[in-house]
Amino acid sequence: MKIDNIDISSYPNSEKVYVTGSRPDIRVAMRRIHQYPTVKIEDGKRVEYPNEDILVYDTSGPYTDPAVKTDINKGLPRHREQWVIDRDDTEVLDDITSEYGRERRDNKAIDAIRFPVQHKPRKAREGRRVTQMHYARKGIVTPEMEYVAIRENLDNRERGIGSYITPEFVRDEVAAGRAIIAANINHPEAEPMVIGKAFSCKINTNIGNSALSSGIEEEVAKAVWSCYWGGDTLMDLSTGDNIHETREWIIRNCPVPMGTVPIYQALEKVNGDVKKLTWEIYRDTLIEQCEQGVDYFTIHAGVLREHARLVGDRLTGCVSRGGSIMTQWCVLHNQESFLYTHFEEICEILNKYDVAISLGDGMRPGSIHDANDRAQFLELDVLGELCAKAWEHDVQVIIEGPGHVPMNKIPANMERQITACHGAPFYTLGPLTTDIAPAYDHITSAIGAAIISALGTAMICYVTPKEHLSLPTLSDVRDGVVTYKIAAHAADLCKGFPGAQVRDNALSKARYDFRWKDQFNLSLDPARAKEYYLQSRRDAPEADDRFCTMCGPNFCAMRISQNIADCCDKD
Amino acid sequence: MKIDNIDISSYPNSEKVYVTGSRPDIRVAMRRIHQYPTVKIEDGKRVEYPNEDILVYDTSGPYTDPAVKTDINKGLPRHREQWVIDRDDTEVLDDITSEYGRERRDNKAIDAIRFPVQHKPRKAREGRRVTQMHYARKGIVTPEMEYVAIRENLDNRERGIGSYITPEFVRDEVAAGRAIIAANINHPEAEPMVIGKAFSCKINTNIGNSALSSGIEEEVAKAVWSCYWGGDTLMDLSTGDNIHETREWIIRNCPVPMGTVPIYQALEKVNGDVKKLTWEIYRDTLIEQCEQGVDYFTIHAGVLREHARLVGDRLTGCVSRGGSIMTQWCVLHNQESFLYTHFEEICEILNKYDVAISLGDGMRPGSIHDANDRAQFLELDVLGELCAKAWEHDVQVIIEGPGHVPMNKIPANMERQITACHGAPFYTLGPLTTDIAPAYDHITSAIGAAIISALGTAMICYVTPKEHLSLPTLSDVRDGVVTYKIAAHAADLCKGFPGAQVRDNALSKARYDFRWKDQFNLSLDPARAKEYYLQSRRDAPEADDRFCTMCGPNFCAMRISQNIADCCDKD
Repeated sequence: MKIDNIDISSYPNSEKVYVTGSRPDIRVAMRRIHQYPTVKIEDGKRVEYPNEDILVYDTSGPYTDPAVKTDINKGLPRHREQWVIDRDDTEVLDDITSEYGRERRDNKAIDAIRFPVQHKPRKAREGRRVTQMHYARKGIVTPEMEYVAIRENLDNRERGIGSYITPEFVRDEVAAGRAIIAANINHPEAEPMVIGKAFSCKINTNIGNSALSSGIEEEVAKAVWSCYWGGDTLMDLSTGDNIHETREWIIRNCPVPMGTVPIYQALEKVNGDVKKLTWEIYRDTLIEQCEQGVDYFTIHAGVLREHARLVGDRLTGCVSRGGSIMTQWCVLHNQESFLYTHFEEICEILNKYDVAISLGDGMRPGSIHDANDRAQFLELDVLGELCAKAWEHDVQVIIEGPGHVPMNKIPANMERQITACHGAPFYTLGPLTTDIAPAYDHITSAIGAAIISALGTAMICYVTPKEHLSLPTLSDVRDGVVTYKIAAHAADLCKGFPGAQVRDNALSKARYDFRWKDQFNLSLDPARAKEYYLQSRRDAPEADDRFCTMCGPNFCAMRISQNIADCCDKD
Repeated sequence: MKIDNIDISSYPNSEKVYVTGSRPDIRVAMRRIHQYPTVKIEDGKRVEYPNEDILVYDTSGPYTDPAVKTDINKGLPRHREQWVIDRDDTEVLDDITSEYGRERRDNKAIDAIRFPVQHKPRKAREGRRVTQMHYARKGIVTPEMEYVAIRENLDNRERGIGSYITPEFVRDEVAAGRAIIAANINHPEAEPMVIGKAFSCKINTNIGNSALSSGIEEEVAKAVWSCYWGGDTLMDLSTGDNIHETREWIIRNCPVPMGTVPIYQALEKVNGDVKKLTWEIYRDTLIEQCEQGVDYFTIHAGVLREHARLVGDRLTGCVSRGGSIMTQWCVLHNQESFLYTHFEEICEILNKYDVAISLGDGMRPGSIHDANDRAQFLELDVLGELCAKAWEHDVQVIIEGPGHVPMNKIPANMERQITACHGAPFYTLGPLTTDIAPAYDHITSAIGAAIISALGTAMICYVTPKEHLSLPTLSDVRDGVVTYKIAAHAADLCKGFPGAQVRDNALSKARYDFRWKDQFNLSLDPARAKEYYLQSRRDAPEADDRFCTMCGPNFCAMRISQNIADCCDKD
């Protein structure tokens, strides 16, 4: 198998660099963007003033490092494995624990689509908890914590930009539950990253096939593509065929933490018949995925039997897939949700692999009309209760949020979440600030996402132009990721995140200097910026014009403005 | 000439309707969207429940009325002419007043590109002022005021949604300067609209050629196209060839108010040599455009000689074209700006035609770095002073705002504008909330635009994906307009504008009912929503699927949710 429909080999005029931590195998990958000099004519002579390199956060993994030869049939280097081994609290299992996992392994019929390399799963030794939260609470700074501290700081120290982010600070935030490092011991290919209010705002992307479309190759391409454009985490929401094998391919090739919603696969196992779902099937699914290396699970454990009636009061009912499945299960069985009744058992499975929980908002509003209603906020209180319970088991938690919410109702979401969920990181889908723009919901939601992350949401889940209409293509993934990078960055600027403005300043200086190539290279989507520019310059694509292509030479404000500065200087 | 590259003949499953006011020629155009019934199976029988028609604000003019035969060579019907005549305070001039206008008229070389029909200009009689503000202050409710009151209310009265918007309320807002109705007596083709904090948020689109591209036909197409997608006003920013003739074609075919920046044309008249600009050339340009029918002028009269030095302190200098031209003029002549020194004379010209002033923000920040700086806010104070002066002459005023502003600095802009400019409507370009996303600046700016309009900005100027890179194509105009309709609508919802949520509720109900066609038809871009949907349904494009095309049949939350409601109902 190979990914030949996307180009992810490098970023323009950029270099992959590694900042080394306290041990030589803590090598934090960053992207260093080189800039051209500023050219001035002084006393008739051409003078060049160099412009500094700009370091930016890099989620693309080894794919953009020409020194690493990647092969999706082998998977990425397992660079975090030694850290796990060194902690000496895990063991390699002789066999896969999950019944279903073994069944798939032994099924010859799917050999052709199976990931070629098999790794034995690792698990905590009896009686041990191996979560980052567990270590943090013991006062231990793990290599993962140090890694993310370096990563969040970029080269601020070099630049003299003060920052509060030290490895100890990361540890304390993780210990308090205000941040998580989603890092399953069975996904050592992933580069550690941190999700928390005190850190840069992160974005998640959703991929995954459905019964209607999409094969394994396409999903792996989407995963890698999403990382290339800047996705910080990735959820595989597959509901179609070969979910197990698709996931294996993605995880082995995924340099960022990967999440799933296990109830989807559990439902596939009973052929979509909600009534047949059982705790046992769900439990086996959890273990199956824990041992594959999923880093976090969305679990809709806050959807309770008593909430089912509230769905009828809504304009758009329950729009969360997991939430609607569990609600229907409760109604059909007239029983409390097994996710809720077995929650502590779930936690005790997860802390053996360090899988974080993303507490799903099954009652998220699916329309402006339903925003901030009783069903939504009642569930949030339950999520807070479950969050505290997970923490008792040292399981890391994030809390999912809406959905469709008008701008005036966004702050209440953030405020209630912080209070009800004891400061656990908030992770929202948008929210979409109006219902009337299908095909543009990346935009309706980026408005809400920027606002809610400026208020403290730690991670925002992207929405693509295809939301409500179809599954995203590669092109939609790119649009969705870049749009959400914008929202997250706007929020980082708003919060005054240390060093966030360095890139804006560099790009704006490049723009003012008419260093067009630097303007493109510093942007979130260099290829598209260049492409649009060239549409005006078909005649001379490589010209570094001394005017803006919107206005033409006589009307270029920036050129005139530089003339003014020259005039004033000469006064 | 004809526009054959765009389809603007109708909206899907919609009807053009007119709500008649107190006189039969006050016919307020609206779009009525028909909906399909909700289908339910009850006791094994198919039962249909009708869904009400939804009225939406319609800026597309007669083009979408199949009963009107439009021809761009003749121009649109001059339906507002009688209102002007009835006021009996204007006269038809025998000849064009502007020297340049006469010169162009007599130039045989441009006959081929000239608009075929010539209308004699109209002007206030000696000693009269003919502005909507003048009438409002006299206590008169004009047909224009009544028109916009009906337009803003849509059918709220029918629907029982209370609204404060009466013709008298409109009059009082215009009298106080808190709202404007830009309606040049020489542009009777335009349908009146109101710009003010108390009304729905409006969007402006910019079109216009430059030395690098674009002909008359293309610009007329862009103008009509912009109205089709929902542009409330239109600015022709042409700086290339044949500005006078391009403008004539646009105005005669433009159903919305049209604005310009007269300094651009003035500069063209002196071949781009800023030094040669004079008050006389500028004055002649104003009169030329007043008599063509331009509804509002951007005038950068707040850029003063003493501010020129501040430009040097900035990262990106002065990014406003008009602002940079005037700054350079001040520096070159070491004189105060003629726009400032002749401001009252300008007002006395404009109130003879009812041309509104959009006080340009020549010092708007062009980067996050320069936001809310001294240069910007000093100019805002000058704009407030000029605003008060214009009001002495009964000239309607809006105030232009930034630019590039991080989210945390947006509220200060709105607060200072309201205070410094005595409540005059604010009209902002975005603002862009980060600098790092060229090719996506419709999105970086929609975030800022939604926030600032929720705070009270009355009109937001669109930004297209080509901002900073190239002139917008038709496709960019569509993206820019729809994106800004989203921002404006999100703000209207946020402000609780009467009736704003009716369309959201209808679309969400359609979505929940799986009435796909209604979902498309109620959306801001029906064609694109349908196109994306069909990408998943190549096999059965006309099927009204009872599931969402993202999730497939087994995983459709809304379908499951309806099953739940059914279960609960039966309890």
